[in-house]
Amino acid sequence: MRLALGVEYDGSGFSGWQRLSAAGAMVADGSVQAALEIALSRVAAVPVTTVCAGRTDAGVHARCQVVHFDCAVSRDPRGWVLGTTANLPPTMAVRWCVPVPDTFSARFSAVARAYRYRILNRSARPGLERQYLGWERMPLDADAMHAAAQALCGERDFSAFRSVQCQARHARRNLHWIAVRRLGDEVVVEVQANAFLHHMVRNIVGSLLMVGRGERPVHWIADLLEGRDRTVAGPTAPAAGLLFLGPRYPRSWGLPEEVSLDA
Amino acid sequence: MRLALGVEYDGSGFSGWQRLSAAGAMVADGSVQAALEIALSRVAAVPVTTVCAGRTDAGVHARCQVVHFDCAVSRDPRGWVLGTTANLPPTMAVRWCVPVPDTFSARFSAVARAYRYRILNRSARPGLERQYLGWERMPLDADAMHAAAQALCGERDFSAFRSVQCQARHARRNLHWIAVRRLGDEVVVEVQANAFLHHMVRNIVGSLLMVGRGERPVHWIADLLEGRDRTVAGPTAPAAGLLFLGPRYPRSWGLPEEVSLDA
Repeated sequence: MRLALGVEYDGSGFSGWQRLSAAGAMVADGSVQAALEIALSRVAAVPVTTVCAGRTDAGVHARCQVVHFDCAVSRDPRGWVLGTTANLPPTMAVRWCVPVPDTFSARFSAVARAYRYRILNRSARPGLERQYLGWERMPLDADAMHAAAQALCGERDFSAFRSVQCQARHARRNLHWIAVRRLGDEVVVEVQANAFLHHMVRNIVGSLLMVGRGERPVHWIADLLEGRDRTVAGPTAPAAGLLFLGPRYPRSWGLPEEVSLDA
Repeated sequence: MRLALGVEYDGSGFSGWQRLSAAGAMVADGSVQAALEIALSRVAAVPVTTVCAGRTDAGVHARCQVVHFDCAVSRDPRGWVLGTTANLPPTMAVRWCVPVPDTFSARFSAVARAYRYRILNRSARPGLERQYLGWERMPLDADAMHAAAQALCGERDFSAFRSVQCQARHARRNLHWIAVRRLGDEVVVEVQANAFLHHMVRNIVGSLLMVGRGERPVHWIADLLEGRDRTVAGPTAPAAGLLFLGPRYPRSWGLPEEVSLDA
């Protein structure tokens, strides 16, 4: 049977989502995926491999990563949640487990992914929550950043915000919405798209920061998008500020509310 | 001249606020206070000792601890903020620095202190943000906890919620307000009083958890308060969930908005 799992992790100590060792090797290789598969395999008592909704980079966190896996062993969902969590490193936990049809894919059934990027905006670097924050010492104009970001909405070619290592076949993505707002001394960027290119959120944030600092005009983001040239866009923002809120699936799959969306 | 400083820290790796070594020894002894005094002394180029608004225990965090110190060396506030932060461990940072009259005391001028306690309420332990969360696996009735907590408001004898190590002369404190609310899978307790006894917030939370789990009725908190007997109240909640939001001073001191209060 196939199971879907909601997983959270602090990415600080990991090399990123993707397993570096061979599938089924069950070696703790510093990746989130290997840590999860080792824990699941202990509960299943057979090797388990997983497919995730969104591969995160080193240092990037997840509020609710979703994976699916197939397993002949029958356990109740609560057993999977508690048994797997007990076998995970302390910076990872399973949020929920739901049986799904064999046609469900954590990756291909997802119709949207959402991310949050937190920027501490003050002269002194972060102390509290530092592993969850980017940092900008120059005052940011969050309203200008929000206005500039609206040019990214819709079905667009995001070549300007794609890392050189990106292996996607094409750069077209449908960005559903993006919002930039100030919360005290933080500036928070939230964005949802059908899918993201490699480093896309961090590259968007890096360019928005140049607008926020007043180094580029609001329409620069639209110009960048139009130009499709990664080399003229802003730098990649640090990983620590980025949180993968999670994927979204059509409600008909019967997954928990936090990852469901009206189609 | 006298200076007031707003400081934030992640308490996870510290023995608590209070310096364990002798004043002026400038030894990194695992305390927050020693780390701060060492950093300040490097900027001042003479030994500096500090007085804080609220001593926090091991593992307890601070959003804005306030300290004052005297120093003959003249530096602009920005120099103190950036120079001191540069000399602090990565889990501490200075938020602001303001010159104050010699009559100001971070401890005695404070008219209120506020704390937040975050409880992750789900079957699996925390993974993300685990150093900032308490954890309760049984479902909590946050409304019952809020109702029960209201009995604590006003000028009361808090002997029932005072640790045996508490060195305060008496147990009367004026609790201004306390609120318990559910935010997704978290239950958050926020409380403000003129001052707190040792372990008072964590002991209140420990008893509220018993009400939240349905093991005690709502009026039990009022009964505990009335009985003044620590031995019948709930256990002390873990340090990790506790955040010292900061002290509050009359606006007339001219301190930043985040620590000012209309008298």
